[in-house]
Amino acid sequence: MKAVLLAAGRSQRMQPVPDKNFLMFLGKPLVVHQIEQLINAGFRDIIIVGGAHNLNSLKALTKSFNFKKAKLSFAEQKNLDDGMAGAIISLKNKIIDHEPVIFVSSNDVVDGKAFDLMKKACSDKKNGSCILAKRVIKYFPGGYLKTNKQGFIQKIIEKPAEGKEPSDLVNIVIHCHKNPKKLIEVLEKTKTTKDDRYEVALDKLIKAGHKLKAVEFDGFWQPVKYPWHVFKVMQFFLKNIKKKISIKAEISKRAVINGNVIIENGVKIYDNAVINGPSYIGQNTIIATSALVRDSMINENCVIGFATEIARSYLGNNVWTHTNYIGDSIISDNCSFGSGTVTGNLRLDEGDISVNIRGQKVNSGMNKFGLITGENIRAGINTSFMPGVKIGSNSMIGAGIIIPYDIPENSFVIGKVDLEIKPNKAKVSNGSREEMMKKLK
Amino acid sequence: MKAVLLAAGRSQRMQPVPDKNFLMFLGKPLVVHQIEQLINAGFRDIIIVGGAHNLNSLKALTKSFNFKKAKLSFAEQKNLDDGMAGAIISLKNKIIDHEPVIFVSSNDVVDGKAFDLMKKACSDKKNGSCILAKRVIKYFPGGYLKTNKQGFIQKIIEKPAEGKEPSDLVNIVIHCHKNPKKLIEVLEKTKTTKDDRYEVALDKLIKAGHKLKAVEFDGFWQPVKYPWHVFKVMQFFLKNIKKKISIKAEISKRAVINGNVIIENGVKIYDNAVINGPSYIGQNTIIATSALVRDSMINENCVIGFATEIARSYLGNNVWTHTNYIGDSIISDNCSFGSGTVTGNLRLDEGDISVNIRGQKVNSGMNKFGLITGENIRAGINTSFMPGVKIGSNSMIGAGIIIPYDIPENSFVIGKVDLEIKPNKAKVSNGSREEMMKKLK
Amino acid sequence: MKAVLLAAGRSQRMQPVPDKNFLMFLGKPLVVHQIEQLINAGFRDIIIVGGAHNLNSLKALTKSFNFKKAKLSFAEQKNLDDGMAGAIISLKNKIIDHEPVIFVSSNDVVDGKAFDLMKKACSDKKNGSCILAKRVIKYFPGGYLKTNKQGFIQKIIEKPAEGKEPSDLVNIVIHCHKNPKKLIEVLEKTKTTKDDRYEVALDKLIKAGHKLKAVEFDGFWQPVKYPWHVFKVMQFFLKNIKKKISIKAEISKRAVINGNVIIENGVKIYDNAVINGPSYIGQNTIIATSALVRDSMINENCVIGFATEIARSYLGNNVWTHTNYIGDSIISDNCSFGSGTVTGNLRLDEGDISVNIRGQKVNSGMNKFGLITGENIRAGINTSFMPGVKIGSNSMIGAGIIIPYDIPENSFVIGKVDLEIKPNKAKVSNGSREEMMKKLK
Repeated sequence: MKAVLLAAGRSQRMQPVPDKNFLMFLGKPLVVHQIEQLINAGFRDIIIVGGAHNLNSLKALTKSFNFKKAKLSFAEQKNLDDGMAGAIISLKNKIIDHEPVIFVSSNDVVDGKAFDLMKKACSDKKNGSCILAKRVIKYFPGGYLKTNKQGFIQKIIEKPAEGKEPSDLVNIVIHCHKNPKKLIEVLEKTKTTKDDRYEVALDKLIKAGHKLKAVEFDGFWQPVKYPWHVFKVMQFFLKNIKKKISIKAEISKRAVINGNVIIENGVKIYDNAVINGPSYIGQNTIIATSALVRDSMINENCVIGFATEIARSYLGNNVWTHTNYIGDSIISDNCSFGSGTVTGNLRLDEGDISVNIRGQKVNSGMNKFGLITGENIRAGINTSFMPGVKIGSNSMIGAGIIIPYDIPENSFVIGKVDLEIKPNKAKVSNGSREEMMKKLK
Repeated sequence: MKAVLLAAGRSQRMQPVPDKNFLMFLGKPLVVHQIEQLINAGFRDIIIVGGAHNLNSLKALTKSFNFKKAKLSFAEQKNLDDGMAGAIISLKNKIIDHEPVIFVSSNDVVDGKAFDLMKKACSDKKNGSCILAKRVIKYFPGGYLKTNKQGFIQKIIEKPAEGKEPSDLVNIVIHCHKNPKKLIEVLEKTKTTKDDRYEVALDKLIKAGHKLKAVEFDGFWQPVKYPWHVFKVMQFFLKNIKKKISIKAEISKRAVINGNVIIENGVKIYDNAVINGPSYIGQNTIIATSALVRDSMINENCVIGFATEIARSYLGNNVWTHTNYIGDSIISDNCSFGSGTVTGNLRLDEGDISVNIRGQKVNSGMNKFGLITGENIRAGINTSFMPGVKIGSNSMIGAGIIIPYDIPENSFVIGKVDLEIKPNKAKVSNGSREEMMKKLK
Repeated sequence: MKAVLLAAGRSQRMQPVPDKNFLMFLGKPLVVHQIEQLINAGFRDIIIVGGAHNLNSLKALTKSFNFKKAKLSFAEQKNLDDGMAGAIISLKNKIIDHEPVIFVSSNDVVDGKAFDLMKKACSDKKNGSCILAKRVIKYFPGGYLKTNKQGFIQKIIEKPAEGKEPSDLVNIVIHCHKNPKKLIEVLEKTKTTKDDRYEVALDKLIKAGHKLKAVEFDGFWQPVKYPWHVFKVMQFFLKNIKKKISIKAEISKRAVINGNVIIENGVKIYDNAVINGPSYIGQNTIIATSALVRDSMINENCVIGFATEIARSYLGNNVWTHTNYIGDSIISDNCSFGSGTVTGNLRLDEGDISVNIRGQKVNSGMNKFGLITGENIRAGINTSFMPGVKIGSNSMIGAGIIIPYDIPENSFVIGKVDLEIKPNKAKVSNGSREEMMKKLK
C-alpha cells in the first residue's frame, strides 16, 4: 500500500510560527517524525505532497535524513487553495488503479496505533475506503461523520457550526482508499464554492454505493492548526521519553536533573541549574547558572541564561535568554531576550486566553498562555509581553515597555521616553548604609 | 478573677490589612494567642467583647479551637465609637459586684510575664485597681500616667501632644478592677466629647479616693495600631521559635534551611531554595526552586515561586509569588504577583518611610518598608510598588507600571501604552552571535 | 636613573569615572601599581607630578602605602593644559644635568617587561633618548613614529587623522631622556597652538642630530583614556591572578568558586552564590544567596544581593546591588541599585556601542557594553539603563524607567506616572487557583 503524506499546507493560522512540518521535536522535524511513523507502520512507498513554498525544503530535509527502509517521492500541489482535493488530484499520474493508498495529513499527529487500526480495517473486504475517526467531548472545528450501526459513513459534514454537529465523531485525515483512481475521477468532476470539495466527492461515492468505513480510534490525536497546538504535540513527545544524558554533555556536579530529561551532545549545564522532566535539551545548548527548565523542549544552540525560568515552553534553535521568565510560550529560531524581560502567561482575572488568528480572537482554551514569536526576534531588557501576544518574524522590541497586542513582522518597537530631570536636593546619610550593613552581618 | 478580652476594635488604621484579631502568627490567629496567654496565666472565665462586624467570626473561630481549660463567653459592644468605656458598659449584666475583672485589649501584645505582675499587684490589698504601665523612650500616641512616689496614679492624660507628655509612663490596656460594678456606675455618669470617657471616669475614681496602682512592666509590649506594627508582632513571635520541621514536609536535599525555622505539614521545598531563620512556613506552602525566604512569616497554601525573595515580610494564606522581591511587606490572603514585580522598600534618600493613614502621612519610623495589601490582590508582571504604598482589597494592578500612591479597594489599574512601531531597518549579523557563543564556552 | 611618573591628567574623557590614578585594581589604586612597577624595575628615586586637583591625594595615598625601597618626591604641574611639556618643565629645578630620567605616564598600563627593554636600550651608548613604541593593527588616536632602518626616529606625528598614519608604530609614554636639561631648554623655546609641544620639541632635537631610538615592545599596553579602557586594565590584572581565598573570609559550603578567584579578608559568601574566575572580591564584601559573579572585579564593602549577576564588570567600593544584572559596566564608589534594575549591554542590532565623550559619540569598539556611573548614585527598582549610558555623580534615578541617554551629575530623575484607575469588574474564580495548585504538586 502506498502512503501519501499531505504536507502542502501553508500554516497560515500558525503564524508567526513557521511551517509546522519543520518544527523540531526531540531533535527532529515534525515531518520526519511523520515519515518515520509511516515507515514503522510498514509503508515502503511514500509520496510527499508539498507546495511551491516548501517542496524544495521538504526534499532537502528528507534527503539529509536518508531514510533507507522506504522509497520517498514527491509531488507538487499547484493550487494550494484547493485543499485535500487539490493534493490528491496532483497525484493523478503517480497512482495506479486498484492499488490502495493511505492519505495522511502532516497536520494530524496521532499515536502509532492508528496505523495498525487502519491497516486492519483496510484488509477487511467489506470496507471500500476507511476513514480514521475519533469521538470528541468538546466541539472541534473539523469534519463530522454520520454513520450507521455497522460504522459505515452515511454523510460527511465539513465544519458544522458549534451545536450543529451531526455526531460526536470527527474525521482524522488518515484515509485509506482502495480505488484511488475512481476517487480522483469523482474529485475532478466535483465543484464546490467552499473548501469541502473532497468531502462532497466522498459523499458522492457513498451515494454511488461505495462503502466508507469510520475506523474508530481512541488514542492520542492532535491536529496542528493553531499555535497552541504546538504545546499539545510537545507534551505528546515528552510524555514518552526516558532519561537519557549524552556522555558528550558537560554537566556541573551542582546542577540538578529531576525526572525524564533528554540531554543531547555538546550540552553544557552550569552550577545550580535545575531541569525538571519531562524536558528535552537539544545539541550544544547551554543551561546557565541557576536557570530552571521545566516541562519544556529547548532545541539546539540555545543559551538559557542566568536565573532564567523556562516553563512549559517550546524553544526553537538558537534562542538566547537572560534572567527571563518564559512560560507557556512558543519561541521560534534565532530569538533573544534581554535581562528582566518576562512573558505574562496568566490574565489578572485568570480567564482563558484568546489569540488573534487572522483577524479573529480565538479562545485557546488555556488560562496559562504566554508569548508566540516568529524567527529572528530581538527583545530588550525589562520588557513585558502580555499573555497570548504574537510577535512577527524579524522584529525588534525595545526595553522597558509593555507589549499588549500583536506586533507585525519586520517591526521596530520602542516606548516613548519622558523623563523629568531635576537638580538633586536629596542627601543620603552615610550612617544609614552602615546600619544596614550591620543588620546584614 | 474574670478576664475580659476587648476585641471590638475595627482596625481602621490598619486598613487594608483586615481585622487584626484574625491575623495569623505561627499558624494561629492573634486573638487565639491572646486567649491562650490568658489561659496560661490562669484565667478560667474569659469574656470576649466583639462588635457586629466580627462577633460571629470570633465565636466561630474560638469554637473551632475548642479551648478546654477555660469557659469562654461573648458580649457585643453596640456603640463602637464609645471605645473602651462602651466595651465595659456592654458587660453590665455579666459582671458580679466585688468580683475582680482584668480587662485586656486584644490590640496590645505583651510578654506573658505581664500577667504574673498584674496578678501579684492585684492580690495586694493596698491597690484598688491596677494598670499595667511601661516607660517609653520615644513619644507614643497613647495614655500617659502621672504617679506619686508610691506608684499610685494621680492623673491619666489621654494622647497628649508630642512634647506635652506628663511623664514617660504609658498605659497598657491590661487593667484590673476589683470593683467593676462601681466602675460601670461611674462610666455611665461620665460624658465626654472626646474618645477619653474611660480615662475621665478613672480620674473621677481617683479623685474619689480610689487607689489606682501603676504596675511597671519592662517586657515586650507592642500595640497593633498601624500596619507596620505587624512586623513587630511577627518578630516577637519569631524570636522565640525553635527549629521544627514537620516529617510531613517534602524537602529537597538541595534546599538549605539555616537557623530557627518552623516548617509545617505538607510544605514542599524545592531544589536550591534557601530559608534563613527565624522564619515560619505554614501548612501546604511551596517554596519553589531557588527561592529565598528570610526573617519572614509565610502562612498556609502559599506558593513562593522560582527565584523569589521574601525578606522580613508577613504573608497571609494563599499568596502566590513568582520571581519577585517582597521586602518589608505585609501581604494579606489570596494575593498574586506576576514575574518581575518588585516591592520597593527603601527611598532613594534612605529616609524614614511614611504611610498614608486615614488621610494623614504617618512616619513609620522605618527606613525599610515595602508594600501593604488587602486581600484578593492580583498584580501583573514587572510592576514596581513604591515604599509604604497600600493596595485595597480586591484590586487588580496591571503589568509594567509604577504604583507611587495608595490604590483604593476594588480598583483595576493599568498604565497607558504608547508604543512607536516603525519598519525595522536594523540587521543583526549572524557572526556576532557566534562570537558571543565562543566567549561563553 | 630617576623615574618621573606623570599623573597630573584630569581624566576628563573618563568622566564620570573619577581620577583614574585612584581606581582600585586587586585592592590597590592604579597609581600604586605603577609605582610598584617602577620599584620592581629598579628605580629608587621617583618623582610624581600631580596637579592642584590631585596632588594632595597622591601624597596622602602614597604615604599610606609607605614604599620603603624608593624615595618618592612630588612636583606640581601648574598649567594642566600644557600636557606632557608642562609636566616636564615643572621639574626644571629637580633635574640634574646629564642624569638620565625616564618619564612614565600613569595613563599607560604596560607589562613590566617594558622597563627591562627600556633600561637595556638606554644603556646602549648609540641611543640618545629612547621611546617605547608598539606596532598597532587598528588606528589608535596617539603619536606615530617614523623611523629609519636602524630604528631611529625621523619624525613624530601627534594624532594624525585615521588613514593618515605615517607608520604602524605608536608612541607609548615611557620615554628615557639622557639629557633632560637640554630637553627642558628646547621645550621652553617651543611654542605650538596644538597640544603637541613635547612632540615638536623632540622633532627639533632630532633635527639637531639627537639620536631618538624607538624601542619596540610587543607586550601588553593599554592607555587609560576612555571609560571602557578600565575593562582592559581590569582584564590585564585579572589574567595573572592565582586562586587565593583569605582564611578570614566566611564562605558557605553551598557556594561555588570556579577558577582563579581572589577573596579578601572579611568577605562573606552565602549559599548558592557562584563566582567564576578570573574575579576579585575585595575586603568585607558580601556575595549574597544565589548571586553570580563572573570575570569581574568587585572592590571593598560591596553587597552583591540575592540573585544578582555581575558579569565582566568593574565595581568600586561600597556598591550595593539587589536582584540586578550588571554586565560590562563600570560602577564607581557608593552606588546602589534597586531590585530588578538592569544594565542593558547589547544593542538590539548587536552593533558596536558608542559613548558620548565630551559631546562626541566615540565608538567603544565593543558590542557588549553596559553602564558607566560616577560616585554616590542611587537607582530605584525595575529601571533599565541603555548600553553605554553614563550617570554623573550624586544623581538619583527613580524606579521603573528607561535611561536612554547620559544623566548629568547631581540630577534627580523620575518618570511620569499616568495610571488609569477604574472600578474592578473582573472576578477571579477560586477554582482556577486550586487547579493550578494541583498542577504544581
